[in-house]
Amino acid sequence: MRAEDRGVATDAKSGELLMVAHMNAEALKRTVESGEAWYFSRSRKALWKKGESSGHTQRVIEMRVDCDQDTVWIKVEQHGPGACHTGRRSCFYRVVPLKQTGAIALQFRDAERTFNPDAVYDKK
Amino acid sequence: MRAEDRGVATDAKSGELLMVAHMNAEALKRTVESGEAWYFSRSRKALWKKGESSGHTQRVIEMRVDCDQDTVWIKVEQHGPGACHTGRRSCFYRVVPLKQTGAIALQFRDAERTFNPDAVYDKK
Repeated sequence: MRAEDRGVATDAKSGELLMVAHMNAEALKRTVESGEAWYFSRSRKALWKKGESSGHTQRVIEMRVDCDQDTVWIKVEQHGPGACHTGRRSCFYRVVPLKQTGAIALQFRDAERTFNPDAVYDKK
Repeated sequence: MRAEDRGVATDAKSGELLMVAHMNAEALKRTVESGEAWYFSRSRKALWKKGESSGHTQRVIEMRVDCDQDTVWIKVEQHGPGACHTGRRSCFYRVVPLKQTGAIALQFRDAERTFNPDAVYDKK
């Protein structure tokens, strides 16, 4: 795993795609050893444990790696109300309607906030 | 979408993660316009339509984009026996057992070949 590789987290029960984030070799190692999801921030050049600020940790139920070993799929039990820093359960709360042409329009879907991100994340 | 961004394809019925590949702005546009999955090969610097060699195309049932707009989730109807170039239904046919330490070992899971890749892909 390299810094540009990805971890893909789905809800172990519903199959919903919760989030996709960078996962380097050390983040993979920590996830395997701890059974909780760790990722890598390329902008901060730092490892981060999901939920370290919010408490919304991810317990890994199963982990798989893809054929070319640049993506890891983790099926997780998402603790707390959501995985997305915008306050939603999933980061994928906008639909891209098909068969449109020109500038791409988006539609909100399953976009209700399940928590208030201002109250959960540190303001730094 | 930039060249390093990703498209994540799940089976629209089962929720299984089938594959993750690069998807740039033009691949996204073609996917939206055609309703079939297009990706971008960074090594070949070329757009590719899933199934252009194998016939194993992906019809997009729903497309979503994530909060920071660098990943697209497509729920697809996978045509043909599989999505993976190794001849499996999914690229994620190996489990990473949790709580192991040291060098990471893998275990095959759902790894039966559903087609013979040598017979399906062009030898160039």
